[in-house]
Amino acid sequence: MTTMNRRVLLRRRPVGEPTPDDFEVVESPVPEPAAGQALLRTVWLSLDPYMRGRMDEGISYTGTPNPALGDVMVGGTVSEVIASNHRDLAVGDVVVGAQGWQAYAVAGPRGLRKIDPGVAPISTALGVLGMPGLTAYVGLLDIGQPRPGETVVVSAATGAVGAVVGQIAKIKGCRVVGVAGAQAKCDYAVKELGLDACVSHRAPNLDSALRAACPDGIDVYFDNVGGAVLAAVLRLINRNARIPLCGLISEYNARERPAGPNLRPILTQRALVKGFIVGDHTDRMADFLRDGSAWLREGRLRYREDVVEGLERAPEAFIGLLRGANFGKLLVRVGPEPARR
Amino acid sequence: MTTMNRRVLLRRRPVGEPTPDDFEVVESPVPEPAAGQALLRTVWLSLDPYMRGRMDEGISYTGTPNPALGDVMVGGTVSEVIASNHRDLAVGDVVVGAQGWQAYAVAGPRGLRKIDPGVAPISTALGVLGMPGLTAYVGLLDIGQPRPGETVVVSAATGAVGAVVGQIAKIKGCRVVGVAGAQAKCDYAVKELGLDACVSHRAPNLDSALRAACPDGIDVYFDNVGGAVLAAVLRLINRNARIPLCGLISEYNARERPAGPNLRPILTQRALVKGFIVGDHTDRMADFLRDGSAWLREGRLRYREDVVEGLERAPEAFIGLLRGANFGKLLVRVGPEPARR
Repeated sequence: MTTMNRRVLLRRRPVGEPTPDDFEVVESPVPEPAAGQALLRTVWLSLDPYMRGRMDEGISYTGTPNPALGDVMVGGTVSEVIASNHRDLAVGDVVVGAQGWQAYAVAGPRGLRKIDPGVAPISTALGVLGMPGLTAYVGLLDIGQPRPGETVVVSAATGAVGAVVGQIAKIKGCRVVGVAGAQAKCDYAVKELGLDACVSHRAPNLDSALRAACPDGIDVYFDNVGGAVLAAVLRLINRNARIPLCGLISEYNARERPAGPNLRPILTQRALVKGFIVGDHTDRMADFLRDGSAWLREGRLRYREDVVEGLERAPEAFIGLLRGANFGKLLVRVGPEPARR
Repeated sequence: MTTMNRRVLLRRRPVGEPTPDDFEVVESPVPEPAAGQALLRTVWLSLDPYMRGRMDEGISYTGTPNPALGDVMVGGTVSEVIASNHRDLAVGDVVVGAQGWQAYAVAGPRGLRKIDPGVAPISTALGVLGMPGLTAYVGLLDIGQPRPGETVVVSAATGAVGAVVGQIAKIKGCRVVGVAGAQAKCDYAVKELGLDACVSHRAPNLDSALRAACPDGIDVYFDNVGGAVLAAVLRLINRNARIPLCGLISEYNARERPAGPNLRPILTQRALVKGFIVGDHTDRMADFLRDGSAWLREGRLRYREDVVEGLERAPEAFIGLLRGANFGKLLVRVGPEPARR
């Protein structure tokens, strides 16, 4: 019996919101590792909003070309080494990398990071202890620079990045207000993540709801979404506010680039807006893993995973992600956990 | 014969664009300086776009309450001391301050800075060697941080602030592209100020005109105007671009706050936008005056004044300023130059 590889390819470039027909699930032989390569079996695939941009024509903003039609979809993965022609990769090693939406891949050690399954569940390497966690850490601490007692607002507050932002801001002694969609997410943000308040962006009057939650104004806004939430936040920012701009999820599916918020508060409040991309900040990974692992161990950093079973369900899960249908870090279980050694 | 004071009062708060009826020119007795005060005769009054905001209800973004109806309009002035009850202010001294739209005022030394008529014409203390010059210096150098060879774009490029921005950027070795309205202003920016190019925001296709003028993209955008120019610039910014946000003249007369530009390039290019107010940066005045005076003396910093004769013409000149009708630093000659001592 030959095991086959399963892969999700980009079949068509979406116009607006992606549809299942933009993807194609195919089977092909499991590849053979060349000299200097290992064969990796995907255990976990991460689904993240940035992938929407990677489906468009052109160069991604990380500087790498987007997949061509027929290429495998890109994505972060946790994999087990199941065969190896490289001395740095041993069978049984668990690695985090970017093998994309597929069950098997071959790769050299470049771009892979070994993870220790003893520290935390290996899926966390794609979430609270991975790229989303580093995004939160760098954006909040290096750009936002929150001071104790300041008010920090974070959008997509229960998402993979937002949940870490809110909890680190609490650790740093801030008043923290989340913004999320569903009431269940808002409840979770307060009761489980420990935020001081959480406002639904579906509130009939977002301005007044946010104002009530931020009686002292807003000093730091970690923005994942743009759109109406950003506009409402700007009306409440304090002098010298800092706005790490991490994502604009609200417009990723837009067919035309929507207008932005009125910028007058940025001028009058002497505010700072800084776009950033986590890939520029891997020099902070060691600091983040040190702090993040400690906070996790101490129970100060909680996380929630939204697990989808099976690679073939990745397209619909991804489409839902862009609508905010997930609740917690969205992961696809592509294969079984590695046997514990 | 008694000399009377003339004053321009805020008669009505404008809705949208100010009209002459929003102002009232009145005569009143020349005030008497109390103990610790001097009597100042206004020589020059500065007209600046920020004054539009000071005509609205409320607290200005500098933190001071806006004038009440019937109060004198606020504004920067160069004045001659003509009587004094304070030992630090001698008759004949020339001072720069904020005595407002009036021919005479009484004031103590606080908020006044003596200027040396031997260094440059005293009107320059309201322009190239005054608040507009400091605005340019701080915004460009401290926030924009241009490096030699980078492309710097400045809007309102022949205005009091913009003209200094462009010339300092040239001194720092940048490619400098101005944006202005009238063709005569664009010609002046290139031929007299030495900019590499200047684009009219009235060009039929602002995007392509700006792209042609900035073949290597845009690294620093010193923004005075917001609106369509900012949106066009964002589409051309390079990675790690810096945008000192100094003013939003294009919307100062708007009855409702207009939408802003799409912010995606700020995210994807990791750009920085920083609002600033010159009043927060008076600690840089000494550095600026040292550098600015030297550049002026060396002929590396040129300036153009647009002089209106007589205080009673200030309202119409100010209304024109917000339409871009002025050409160079807009000044009102309120009274004769002090006799040279």
